Amino acid sequence: MGSNIKLTLAYDGTDFHGFQSQRGAGRPLRTVQGVLEDVLTHIVGTPVAVTGAGRTDAGVHARGQVVTFATDGAIPVERWTRLLNDRFPRDMVALSAQNVPPTFHPRYDAKRKIYRYTVETAPLPNIFTRRFSAHLGRALDTESMRRAASYFIGTHDFTSFSAARAAVTSRVRTLYDVRLSREGSLVHIWYEGNSFLQYMVRIITGTLVDVGLGRRAACDVPEILAAKDRTCAGPTMPPQGLTLWEVTYGI
Amino acid sequence: MGSNIKLTLAYDGTDFHGFQSQRGAGRPLRTVQGVLEDVLTHIVGTPVAVTGAGRTDAGVHARGQVVTFATDGAIPVERWTRLLNDRFPRDMVALSAQNVPPTFHPRYDAKRKIYRYTVETAPLPNIFTRRFSAHLGRALDTESMRRAASYFIGTHDFTSFSAARAAVTSRVRTLYDVRLSREGSLVHIWYEGNSFLQYMVRIITGTLVDVGLGRRAACDVPEILAAKDRTCAGPTMPPQGLTLWEVTYGI
Repeated sequence: MGSNIKLTLAYDGTDFHGFQSQRGAGRPLRTVQGVLEDVLTHIVGTPVAVTGAGRTDAGVHARGQVVTFATDGAIPVERWTRLLNDRFPRDMVALSAQNVPPTFHPRYDAKRKIYRYTVETAPLPNIFTRRFSAHLGRALDTESMRRAASYFIGTHDFTSFSAARAAVTSRVRTLYDVRLSREGSLVHIWYEGNSFLQYMVRIITGTLVDVGLGRRAACDVPEILAAKDRTCAGPTMPPQGLTLWEVTYGI
Repeated sequence: MGSNIKLTLAYDGTDFHGFQSQRGAGRPLRTVQGVLEDVLTHIVGTPVAVTGAGRTDAGVHARGQVVTFATDGAIPVERWTRLLNDRFPRDMVALSAQNVPPTFHPRYDAKRKIYRYTVETAPLPNIFTRRFSAHLGRALDTESMRRAASYFIGTHDFTSFSAARAAVTSRVRTLYDVRLSREGSLVHIWYEGNSFLQYMVRIITGTLVDVGLGRRAACDVPEILAAKDRTCAGPTMPPQGLTLWEVTYGI
């Protein structure tokens, strides 16, 4: 009897060309999807294709990416985590596996996604955290950033905060929450929303960092949103600070 | 006028064949010393050799390795950190540089060294910390480990806790402190001493982990020390959990 498996996955995105399979110069690049499908195909013996909840870009990490794949059900669901971890490279970890209905779709059925963006404010990079943070090397006024962040919460047209050339019909999205936390010299910015445009988190973060450095006022944010013009917002922060933290479902 | 520079260095040891320069199959392997000397030689224009405080093994990290090198003094000391970090690979960071007397030796003049060994007790590896910890995947009785650790403090013959074939005249060393701390599911074991034998921290940690798992009693430690026999102690823990944390000097 066939079954549909929902797998929760963590990875260090540093050495991946993003989540989605792609080819470069005619050769397949190392992607999360590519490695995962290779390992699954090796275990099952026939080609396995996976569908992911979010297509993280090159260099972006995940603590809770969700993917699904169909199998013939010959392997009991509780064995998948161990089977995968025994075969995964060191920058990927299978966290859990469960059976889901055949109609379940990891992207369309996602209720909320949480992303974390991490900025290092210390003058020098920290060898233990630098793979998962962007090194700014300057202090941030997190109170101003909190005020700026509050303007993003709610339903807005995020055209100013998305890749200019992204081919989407609507750039209206809902952010349920944007909050900041500190961990030593690291500043984490947490984004919770229903779905995200390409580069949205990285551009909002770049704008918040501009505010934190005193280059912009927190109260500029409503104007930037209203402009619907990418050039009005701050820079796109580098991928290494971004982590897809969690995807939640109604099931 | 020549000057002697003391440089404090952090590195992620994962992709290095240890600190010390060495060749494998006739080719130079990637070592911390090798990369550092290449970068220094590139900056200065003539060959530069460095001396390190501790020869960390392959896979071992440093948060505060200390090295010295001689220069003609043409580059002001406050410029070195920036010059090096602009040229270092991402797994190395120069933390500080200062002038020291020509007689200063980073190993012989070291007063104390602190090492940290980190064990992950959670069932699954954590993608953010796994490069810097050994994955045990089981709970540890840290109270028993603390009792066992207390027996190591002081001056002892550490023959049972060192590489059997190490060519040293004396295996008597002094540990000023051995303590444990917890950070979520991570257990850190901190060692402070005057000097350390090869694998000493990793073998003591392996023995403490045996105690934490209930395989040995804390009060077995004095006997193992007295035996002066490597086969009486616990296993050598893997290198990725070990970090040379700090080296302190009288200057």
